[in-house]
Amino acid sequence: MIEYTAIAGGICAPQGFRAAGVKTGIKSQTKEDVAVIWAACTSAAAGMYTLNKMCAAPVTLTKRHLTDGYARAIVVNSGCANACTGEQGLQDALTMVRETARALDLQPSDIAVASTGVIGTFLPMDKVTAGIRQACENLSPQGHDSTMRAIMTTDTFVKELAVEFVLDGRVARIGGMAKGAGMIEPNMATMLSFMTTDAAIQPALLKKALQAAVERSFHAITIDGDTSTNDTVLVLANGLAGNTLIDKEDELFDTFSAALEHVCIYLAKLIVRDGEGATKFLEITVQGAADFAGAKLAAKSIANSPLVKTAFFGQDPNWGRIVAAAGYSGAAMEQDKVSLWIGGHKIVENGQGTGFAGEELTKVMAQKDIAVVIDLGAGAASATVWTCDFSYEYVRINGEYTT
Amino acid sequence: MIEYTAIAGGICAPQGFRAAGVKTGIKSQTKEDVAVIWAACTSAAAGMYTLNKMCAAPVTLTKRHLTDGYARAIVVNSGCANACTGEQGLQDALTMVRETARALDLQPSDIAVASTGVIGTFLPMDKVTAGIRQACENLSPQGHDSTMRAIMTTDTFVKELAVEFVLDGRVARIGGMAKGAGMIEPNMATMLSFMTTDAAIQPALLKKALQAAVERSFHAITIDGDTSTNDTVLVLANGLAGNTLIDKEDELFDTFSAALEHVCIYLAKLIVRDGEGATKFLEITVQGAADFAGAKLAAKSIANSPLVKTAFFGQDPNWGRIVAAAGYSGAAMEQDKVSLWIGGHKIVENGQGTGFAGEELTKVMAQKDIAVVIDLGAGAASATVWTCDFSYEYVRINGEYTT
Repeated sequence: MIEYTAIAGGICAPQGFRAAGVKTGIKSQTKEDVAVIWAACTSAAAGMYTLNKMCAAPVTLTKRHLTDGYARAIVVNSGCANACTGEQGLQDALTMVRETARALDLQPSDIAVASTGVIGTFLPMDKVTAGIRQACENLSPQGHDSTMRAIMTTDTFVKELAVEFVLDGRVARIGGMAKGAGMIEPNMATMLSFMTTDAAIQPALLKKALQAAVERSFHAITIDGDTSTNDTVLVLANGLAGNTLIDKEDELFDTFSAALEHVCIYLAKLIVRDGEGATKFLEITVQGAADFAGAKLAAKSIANSPLVKTAFFGQDPNWGRIVAAAGYSGAAMEQDKVSLWIGGHKIVENGQGTGFAGEELTKVMAQKDIAVVIDLGAGAASATVWTCDFSYEYVRINGEYTT
Repeated sequence: MIEYTAIAGGICAPQGFRAAGVKTGIKSQTKEDVAVIWAACTSAAAGMYTLNKMCAAPVTLTKRHLTDGYARAIVVNSGCANACTGEQGLQDALTMVRETARALDLQPSDIAVASTGVIGTFLPMDKVTAGIRQACENLSPQGHDSTMRAIMTTDTFVKELAVEFVLDGRVARIGGMAKGAGMIEPNMATMLSFMTTDAAIQPALLKKALQAAVERSFHAITIDGDTSTNDTVLVLANGLAGNTLIDKEDELFDTFSAALEHVCIYLAKLIVRDGEGATKFLEITVQGAADFAGAKLAAKSIANSPLVKTAFFGQDPNWGRIVAAAGYSGAAMEQDKVSLWIGGHKIVENGQGTGFAGEELTKVMAQKDIAVVIDLGAGAASATVWTCDFSYEYVRINGEYTT
């Protein structure tokens, strides 16, 4: 078991990273909306992106710039997603990158770009470019805070973590920030997460570690099942911790991967806790599945069921909905072997109710954090996802006339 | 184009069908909750059932009884789904069938059974068997009305249709009834539909016609994407219209199939109109898809997106959510060729907003019936699904403490 020490500084905690967020007026005059994250030297870089076929211009450009596995900076804006903006959108994303490169004396191809906000409108480029120049001037080791604020949309609290751990006898650090998924400000928002580390690791292995960590974290949470046009997770590794370069899947790689997963899971859970209108935090574990894919399929089916989500909001112990959502997921399942626990209490055994119900179960449903465990009776694989309930507030936030 | 004349009588409109619903106290003393539908002679019978792996006892038994392709009666109850009830549940379903067989002097294997209501509780068999005896005594050509009431749960209006059409020079009739999908009373309910016809048709062809009709009707609607443990669609064809037996896929088969689809689509749309808390009726058509499966996948993805559904409730013209929901559906799509129409107005062309927005679009969003058409630019296939919005009322109905 590796020990992680939580430290201050977020994405600026690892050695050799600076950042700054500035107010440009894209969203309003009082909120940061453009930010730059900068690494002191060439860094291994890896990204994971939305699988949505309507993919925003900055995502297209970032994928292109990270193909060589290295980067030096990230430029980001909120308030406008630069999605469904065609050729003009690509030009605008390129201008963001070029402006950052000019201000920091870097190559445009070493810069990643991300956007979040309204779909289908063009970026106000005057404000954006002025903001980029300002952010590059303001870069500082304390800039994680203004950067975090610059990527927030409907988020109600800051989502950051930095940890320190021993790697190859050196002290290494990983810092991360994230903004929430599954909602609108004013149209539709995005899951963004940026991570930095001073560990030394080859790009291909950084990508591998990121993919595994995301599978168990950002890909294991769901607010409403909707996937944005702009979802982006990026990690930069500048190597300044001085460890032997991680270039194969050895013990060092495992240590680094575990630390990265730790940070990703922490941030992912915070996103769920800040789900729009959420009143409950639900951990859905599927066990006894035929394979991991089936376990995750069933867990996501339960987590995305509006009937399950409204039942938890209403504190209604409708366990039939949970079992039914697993049943229609497509995962292998032995109807007569299914068991279900809510808050540690066994509700279903061999596919039938155990009689744990009424007032006792109502008390469990009234808790804020609830663990749901279902055994499909079909194998030995398991998966966990995190989600929240559906409330009146969810409908209000997402249905309100805002445009 | 075939002409259908709508006639009175619902499932009792075709020759040789009787029905009755009675109050037994499963739900309350004031509502019908057990019903029997009876055919005067042996009838070709076909069914389609929930694909949920948690499949209720009556579904298991009905599948078994309809394997020979013939049946004489249907017995149904509401208020208890007889799901997640194990061996006892199967015995109870069998008792329902045996009691019906005894009262009507039929073979148990000629009887189909269906249930809807709470999951995980056992049927109060005293009430149920007494109700079955009473219903069999009450059978009448006017019994469609009490039968319809006996299958209603949270439905707020009756869903019935009977049509008359010319088949092989004879007058044939199809009658149908349905109860709503996607909700609870008090736990979770079910989509049930029973149809009767006096057309003469072989069981295998009746099954084929039913499958095609259901694909374009009950399988093309969605309230919240949840699938129940008890969903059942049954059709009985007693042949009393006197047409030449339909035993191949000829013109007669096409005429009959079109009429059955007409009835199914009518009933399916009524279910959507009665969606829990629905304030809008949405017709989602996907065109320009690579194939029918892709078109349906994208249409269902849009129809099930909570972000899309809350936007329509809030009359918020967030077209980015519609395009994004198609984008993450998995259907083939050419981002730069996508077009979108809402209420007949072109909102997106070649993947970009046309500028039709603001007050004009808000007026369109304020309508009660809204047609959404999206062209994926990836082929020539199309599909239509019907759905409703997500409202505060949906959350209230489904979140309310009821058990």
